[in-house]
Amino acid sequence: MPSPKSISRSAPSTVAATTIVSSLLTVQTRGAGFTDLTAEIAKFVDEAGAQEGMVTLFIRHTSASLTIQENADPTVLDDLLTALDRLAPEGAGWSHDTEGPDDMPAHIRTMLTATSLQIPVLKGRLALGTWQAIYQIEHRRAPHRREVVLQFAGRI
Amino acid sequence: MPSPKSISRSAPSTVAATTIVSSLLTVQTRGAGFTDLTAEIAKFVDEAGAQEGMVTLFIRHTSASLTIQENADPTVLDDLLTALDRLAPEGAGWSHDTEGPDDMPAHIRTMLTATSLQIPVLKGRLALGTWQAIYQIEHRRAPHRREVVLQFAGRI
Amino acid sequence: MPSPKSISRSAPSTVAATTIVSSLLTVQTRGAGFTDLTAEIAKFVDEAGAQEGMVTLFIRHTSASLTIQENADPTVLDDLLTALDRLAPEGAGWSHDTEGPDDMPAHIRTMLTATSLQIPVLKGRLALGTWQAIYQIEHRRAPHRREVVLQFAGRI
Repeated sequence: MPSPKSISRSAPSTVAATTIVSSLLTVQTRGAGFTDLTAEIAKFVDEAGAQEGMVTLFIRHTSASLTIQENADPTVLDDLLTALDRLAPEGAGWSHDTEGPDDMPAHIRTMLTATSLQIPVLKGRLALGTWQAIYQIEHRRAPHRREVVLQFAGRI
Repeated sequence: MPSPKSISRSAPSTVAATTIVSSLLTVQTRGAGFTDLTAEIAKFVDEAGAQEGMVTLFIRHTSASLTIQENADPTVLDDLLTALDRLAPEGAGWSHDTEGPDDMPAHIRTMLTATSLQIPVLKGRLALGTWQAIYQIEHRRAPHRREVVLQFAGRI
Repeated sequence: MPSPKSISRSAPSTVAATTIVSSLLTVQTRGAGFTDLTAEIAKFVDEAGAQEGMVTLFIRHTSASLTIQENADPTVLDDLLTALDRLAPEGAGWSHDTEGPDDMPAHIRTMLTATSLQIPVLKGRLALGTWQAIYQIEHRRAPHRREVVLQFAGRI
């Protein structure tokens, strides 16, 4: 492992934090795949007047999930779907199949990715890296209406 | 990817947030499997008088973890254990085996699931979806005593 | 599943929470592997004067990630790398390969681990378990400069 010298840290900045802003995002999916939520969450941060704190996302489902991934090359998203398909394939002898062959793989893929995510807000903006986008992942084949709770906690 | 029109969002609601409530949950597991923590966390929210904010769960172990999954059909949980067993099998040539063949798979399964989780609280209730339950997952074969820190941050 | 009696919980402690402290950690990695961030985050908690609340970590990259894992036996970390290599192997027919064969596996390994993590702070200290350390995982072969946003929200 690297020596401690490989790590540096900026001086901490401190603010009073007294506000929570909540909102519900509804996403109509078109079947298995990624929906980019980044612009909508940036709008939420703007409207809330959020300056410094944390945005939490929470998806209210067990066969759809969240992830932060590359925003540039769409083949990355294709490969991520391939990877999830290989890690939790259909027709692999699952007991739970009353809702169809894509249901249990959807639960497993949800467990392997994220149900809740946090993104810091600094100087009024999401502190995402250059290549990061926030995605909702639909794991079912059929279109679904999915709900994501957004909550900012911090200084406005 | 869906067009922006596939996403809608409710108007943000804003409250002052000035309170943190912390508690330690102790779970006695019976060996590998799921323990439903939902009722206990709902009680914590009630007792804390939590109105709007976020509950964070943090499990203080590296061979047990957290997930949010379906609360209805128990075969889902059976299949999730099968999936974890296939993704991180015993006897697959791991170097770390001094604590038994189930130890290293337990660490891997912890890495693939969650050590910390957030659930929003809205209008005094956990904002879980209809089919969501909060589970602790024991990845070791033997029963263990596991600690989960609960923390609410928000308005009471 | 265990009966409700298998779960116990301490009385909640309540404090006023009015402060957010933010800082940026920069990690120079040496190629694929783990960097232990625990000591640096403990220093951040000390310097911030954090008493009760939550530290959030957020890594600003899609080919490097975070995890909380065992701090004792280094063979655990070797085996975790082996597991990630098996779950998301190089040369497995990925479409996205313009940045080299280790790029797409790095994105998948990031998706399977954590981009954001929370650790509670209680009585002025990180509430980690005895065997827990906080790691940054570099998934690319080449050394990279990685940024991790740290944010404490709570009482100082």
